[in-house]
Amino acid sequence: MAPFPHSPIPNRPHAHTQTMPDTIEVFDTTLRDGTQGEHVTLSARDKMRIARRLEAFGIDVIEGGWPGSNPTDQAFFEAASGETWAHTSICAFGSTRHASNAPSEDANLQALIEADTDVVSIFGKSWTLHVEQALGVSRETNLDLIRSSVAFLREHGKRVIYDAEHFFDGFADHPAYALRTLRAAAEAGADTLVLCDTNGGSLPHDIYDVTAAVYEDFDTTLGIHAHNNGGCAVANSLAAVRAGARHMQGTINGLGERCGNADLCAVIPDLQLKMDFECVDPDRLDDLVDLARFTNEVANLDPDDGAPYVGRSAFTHKGGVHVSAVMEAPSTYEHVEPNVVGNRRRALVSDLSGRSNIQYKAKEMGIDLGSDAAAQAVERIKELEHLGYEFQGAEASFELLLRTLQDEVPDFFGLDRMRVWSGQDDEAQTVEASLALTVQDERTLAVAEGNGPVDALSNAMREGLLSFYPSLDGVRLSDYKVRVLTPQDGTAATVRVLIEHGDGARTWNTVGVSENILDASWQALADGMRYALFHAAPTPTAGPAPDPAASG
Amino acid sequence: MAPFPHSPIPNRPHAHTQTMPDTIEVFDTTLRDGTQGEHVTLSARDKMRIARRLEAFGIDVIEGGWPGSNPTDQAFFEAASGETWAHTSICAFGSTRHASNAPSEDANLQALIEADTDVVSIFGKSWTLHVEQALGVSRETNLDLIRSSVAFLREHGKRVIYDAEHFFDGFADHPAYALRTLRAAAEAGADTLVLCDTNGGSLPHDIYDVTAAVYEDFDTTLGIHAHNNGGCAVANSLAAVRAGARHMQGTINGLGERCGNADLCAVIPDLQLKMDFECVDPDRLDDLVDLARFTNEVANLDPDDGAPYVGRSAFTHKGGVHVSAVMEAPSTYEHVEPNVVGNRRRALVSDLSGRSNIQYKAKEMGIDLGSDAAAQAVERIKELEHLGYEFQGAEASFELLLRTLQDEVPDFFGLDRMRVWSGQDDEAQTVEASLALTVQDERTLAVAEGNGPVDALSNAMREGLLSFYPSLDGVRLSDYKVRVLTPQDGTAATVRVLIEHGDGARTWNTVGVSENILDASWQALADGMRYALFHAAPTPTAGPAPDPAASG
Repeated sequence: MAPFPHSPIPNRPHAHTQTMPDTIEVFDTTLRDGTQGEHVTLSARDKMRIARRLEAFGIDVIEGGWPGSNPTDQAFFEAASGETWAHTSICAFGSTRHASNAPSEDANLQALIEADTDVVSIFGKSWTLHVEQALGVSRETNLDLIRSSVAFLREHGKRVIYDAEHFFDGFADHPAYALRTLRAAAEAGADTLVLCDTNGGSLPHDIYDVTAAVYEDFDTTLGIHAHNNGGCAVANSLAAVRAGARHMQGTINGLGERCGNADLCAVIPDLQLKMDFECVDPDRLDDLVDLARFTNEVANLDPDDGAPYVGRSAFTHKGGVHVSAVMEAPSTYEHVEPNVVGNRRRALVSDLSGRSNIQYKAKEMGIDLGSDAAAQAVERIKELEHLGYEFQGAEASFELLLRTLQDEVPDFFGLDRMRVWSGQDDEAQTVEASLALTVQDERTLAVAEGNGPVDALSNAMREGLLSFYPSLDGVRLSDYKVRVLTPQDGTAATVRVLIEHGDGARTWNTVGVSENILDASWQALADGMRYALFHAAPTPTAGPAPDPAASG
Repeated sequence: MAPFPHSPIPNRPHAHTQTMPDTIEVFDTTLRDGTQGEHVTLSARDKMRIARRLEAFGIDVIEGGWPGSNPTDQAFFEAASGETWAHTSICAFGSTRHASNAPSEDANLQALIEADTDVVSIFGKSWTLHVEQALGVSRETNLDLIRSSVAFLREHGKRVIYDAEHFFDGFADHPAYALRTLRAAAEAGADTLVLCDTNGGSLPHDIYDVTAAVYEDFDTTLGIHAHNNGGCAVANSLAAVRAGARHMQGTINGLGERCGNADLCAVIPDLQLKMDFECVDPDRLDDLVDLARFTNEVANLDPDDGAPYVGRSAFTHKGGVHVSAVMEAPSTYEHVEPNVVGNRRRALVSDLSGRSNIQYKAKEMGIDLGSDAAAQAVERIKELEHLGYEFQGAEASFELLLRTLQDEVPDFFGLDRMRVWSGQDDEAQTVEASLALTVQDERTLAVAEGNGPVDALSNAMREGLLSFYPSLDGVRLSDYKVRVLTPQDGTAATVRVLIEHGDGARTWNTVGVSENILDASWQALADGMRYALFHAAPTPTAGPAPDPAASG
């Protein structure tokens, strides 16, 4: 195969005497600016789950929210401060002080200090339009707001990242003043000056020219914060790096207000694979697809199949010409190898990659899958994926599927009948589920109430199984998600239910799909119980210990 | 309001003696390259509908397909050839001849002639890797394939656009040879040389440098065809124009294989509003949003709310600070005026914002909300948001809430009792819902079956209401979404249901929240019907017409 024809891009010549580093500090603001997106809502617990994944991926700074602005962000910073972060710094976001407050009496600055993070990012005004119209203060006063706020945070031991809001618009309007705002922040102790294209309408050549101009003037590290309103957020971020920026702000999957922020899932591989910068440990880059999908799952957002690098279609070939050419030499129709970012090649006419992939996954789980069983598994998974199953977020169901093909899973229980009843008269409601199960060759009936039909079903299942399997007593349902797969079918749509169970020590995820939400829920609930039973009392053939990592 | 701070970008200096035109020929390939996208399928009739809209918008050339490759494209070219095209040229796509055929005996070239279009685009190989590995011919033979194919089409009176496949990769590998392929096409009579970034991984600075190098060497018009695999398709297209290209290929909404093609819905306004080029008649630019949505509708694709310029969220403001600033001076958080591209400003009703936000929304809906009523509405919305309601995706529920506070909404119907039953025995299932309703002071009972409990409920509601309100006959449920709000509560979690209804002319969205998914669904379904009834038969107090724009 021919090498990919992208040569590294030399850094631009510049006035600084020191050598430019070829590493980029990556600053993720999915949890803050990302949640400004129209459909994005994250609980404090969601934020913690994403933050842990961001750290594992190698993100340098995670902006968690605006402390004091709402209870969710408050709860996140409390949780984050109780956690040990090995590589990542957690960052709290806020604004410069209000003009009428001394720094020590400014509620916003106080909240930043109380958030108990090592790093703080604060935004200030660069554009005279905003200074005069939005803040209603003089240009000199604005400089003092910046200076005194940064200095106050520095006195409290914080590393301060200064976000120059609307920098490019401000610079176009009044370059000297825009530069003075940066100077104020730098002199007061900000160690990074982030040039923000807040309205998102700048084009790459503007970004390059302006960043280069700032770079000539400052020794402080420059950062870039781009939005996608002109469709150029990724390119704008790259242009800033070429002009000297070494701090990169963005969000996973480009989540964010209006058209979103710069998508780190494209910016990071562009910088790392095509421009020879180091953003994350090269060994971790192949976790990118998992990180992108995990973030979508937690935020309950539909993935964008066409997303660069991480989309399901990013390496998918439809045309017959393309498919055969790619089989011979991937670089004929692929700009990078999909596995470099953890993606995979797909061909829509005939699936080529399935089997080895599945054998690889099976091995990870301690299952020795023969070649025939792997082929059988590929077939079964294709059928199930066609029906709407998705095993990305449901590894326990996937493991059960493989082990069932290997005849490893005992027949723990079977469903003979399910009845769910929901009645509502004015405010009073009764919800009841009854089940007929066969457990250990014995027929058993169970009935339970619940808050809603799925809850009643879950309660009835526990009720029916507990006397046979006391080990299930410690198993708890810890997450429940529903995704409508064919929304255009309205209430007759197919739904996918993802369920997480836990036993205090670990958690596992299962999936169910049906037009009937109760049926889909039953499948996922039952898989969750079977997985627990399988690993609680391994049969002689089961082999590995519950922890796949310990057995792989 | 301050002017937008983007100054026109001067064309780069160049060696040509003639003045560079500031118009761009726009070449749309939605119907050809767009349909290579994983989820994109268009019938010949769909293609004709889209082509007519593209012409009305002012697209110069419409590439309709690859004649001879499939029956759909065949049918399209037959239909198109029977139509009169005032402004637009229809273009047929194909490849250079096969090495073993004389041009006059090559089936592919014959099909191009028979397609009966004024314009033909043919692609040839620029990259030695492809010449040798994919075609398996010598470099000289490849030049002859290009030369003889173009000449043959010219002899048959066609305007020939030459697509240089993989041009940027080929140029990086072997610049002299890549230029020779272009020379062969130009000398044989191609009037436009399109530089294709087929694999989509080039970055804007590469595109600029290579296009500039070609531009120095050729008097022929240069074009650009970019793909989005590195997230830079829009920026790459702009970079090529800055380097001298004056022919722009792309697709509506960026549809296309893998990560898609350059999105004309971003490229056109970027060029026209920010770089002072003329792509389409300026008076037509405000049809852009309609064109984008129409194309998604015909292709049956979910719209991307975050799409630059044309997305539903592109001018949507969530944070309270942003909302109040935008109301005062739109350029504070908007890079262009939304109406310029036919979009509109939206303010999200969310806990981040307050009274001014709600008054703004009410005004949009034609509701004159006094200051007291607005304060009351803020209180009520806060309560509901605390319970998990979210009105940003449910504007019809929001409107009903405001109108109910103003006593404008008649008591169309009330729920006295709801019973839902779901039974499953092995594979067989029965799902049934029964309702007792009070409609126009009359008690009525309704019962219906369904695929799942929510479907049965929806069917029963229609059943119960239709005889009283025949106007509901045209109302259809078009989208159904479920979000689990407190996933850690497992199956006892609170769920939020979002429902979209439509009547063929427009759609509206409603919300319901409960621990019981059936109760939440009922709320959203009932709001959907009430909204339809309110706007179908306005009561004397209702005032405004259904279209908020007409009454605001």
